[in-house]
Amino acid sequence: MRKLILASGSPRRKELLSVLGLKYEVCPSKFKEDNIVKTSAEEFVCATARKKAQEVGNRKQGLILAADTVVCLGEEILGKPVDEKDALEMLEKLAGTTHRVLTGVAIWDPPTGKEAIQYEETRVFFRTAKRDELLEYIATGEPMDKAGAYAIQGLGSIFVSGIEGCYFNVVGLPLFRLSQMLASFGVDIFSKEEADGRKGEVSTDD
Amino acid sequence: MRKLILASGSPRRKELLSVLGLKYEVCPSKFKEDNIVKTSAEEFVCATARKKAQEVGNRKQGLILAADTVVCLGEEILGKPVDEKDALEMLEKLAGTTHRVLTGVAIWDPPTGKEAIQYEETRVFFRTAKRDELLEYIATGEPMDKAGAYAIQGLGSIFVSGIEGCYFNVVGLPLFRLSQMLASFGVDIFSKEEADGRKGEVSTDD
Repeated sequence: MRKLILASGSPRRKELLSVLGLKYEVCPSKFKEDNIVKTSAEEFVCATARKKAQEVGNRKQGLILAADTVVCLGEEILGKPVDEKDALEMLEKLAGTTHRVLTGVAIWDPPTGKEAIQYEETRVFFRTAKRDELLEYIATGEPMDKAGAYAIQGLGSIFVSGIEGCYFNVVGLPLFRLSQMLASFGVDIFSKEEADGRKGEVSTDD
Repeated sequence: MRKLILASGSPRRKELLSVLGLKYEVCPSKFKEDNIVKTSAEEFVCATARKKAQEVGNRKQGLILAADTVVCLGEEILGKPVDEKDALEMLEKLAGTTHRVLTGVAIWDPPTGKEAIQYEETRVFFRTAKRDELLEYIATGEPMDKAGAYAIQGLGSIFVSGIEGCYFNVVGLPLFRLSQMLASFGVDIFSKEEADGRKGEVSTDD
C-alpha cells in the first residue's frame, strides 16, 4: 500500500481526512494560487488542486491528494479576507443570499501517471444580518482565515439556515466524493490495515 | 445571566453547543422516551424534548435546553439499533433512499414559565451500498449508538451524497434554529460574558 500524502496544511482538511480513518502524511503545497488564470470557478478550483498536487508529487513519493475551496457569489469568487474591513464587505455581500461553495479535489499517483480531478458544489443559505452583528462576529477572529469570511463549522453556523449538497465540501474536503475517488485508486477505507491505524496523520519519516 | 443547562449526556450535543461558545452545565435527563405515545415524528421529537426539559427543570435551576433526534424513512421512525443485526436491517433500508432526520428542541425557563418548542427537519441522501460494505461499516462499531445506525460526522459520511437543510440537525442539535430560539430568551452568543468563556461545558457546582 503506497503512502497517502495530503498536500495541504489546513487543520480543517487534516481533521476531515482523519474522519475517514486513513493513515496519511501531511506535506503542504508551495504552489501559489495567484499563478492560476481565473476563468470559471469550477475550472479554477480544479486547476489549483491539480497544481498543488503536482508541486508536492514532484518532490515526494506517494499517492498525492490536494484540494482547493472557494466561495462564489454569482460570478464573483471570494477568497480569504485580507483584513477586517474586507471581511465585513464579504459578509455584507453574503447576508440574505444563497452562495455556492466549490472544492476541487485532485489525486495523483506519479508511478502509474494516473490522475483524477473532480469538483463538488454545495449551495449555502445565509440569513440576513445587521452590521453590528457581523462586526461582533468578526471581532471573534473566526472569519479571518476562511474563504468567504465565515466558518460553517464554527460560530458562522448561526448565519447558515441550511445547505444543499455535501456539508464537508463547505468545510474544505468533500468526504463522499473523496471516498469514491480514493476507491478508484484502490484505497479501501474499511481495509484491515487502515482499521488498525484509525488515527489519521502519521509523522513523516523522510 | 441565568445558567444554561443542557439536559443531555450526548457527547455530540455537548460538542455542538460548545461550537456556539456558550457556557453551560450538563445534566442528562432521566426521562424515558418509551413513555411517549408515537404519533407523527414531528410530534414525537417535540414531546420528547419537552419531557426531557421538564424532568431536569423540576430538579435543577437554570435555563433548560433539551433535544431529541430521530431518523424517519417514510412513516417509520428509526431509533438506535439494539444489535448488529438490527443495524444491518436499518442500513439496508436506508441504502439508496432519501430519509428525513428530525430534531425537536425544547427550551424552558421555569422562573418565568416561558417555554419554546420547535423542530428542524433535514433530508439526507444515502447512496446504495452492498451488504459486505455495510457489514464492514458495522464492524467499526460506529453505528451502534446512533439513530438510524450511522454517523454523518464519522465514517458514515462516505454513504451520504448530500443533504438538504441544517447539517448540525443531523448530528443532533440544529445550531441555526437553536441560536434563534436562545436569542428569544435573551441569550446573546456574542455577549462579552460568553466571549470570556468560549470554553463550553463548565463543572457543576451543586
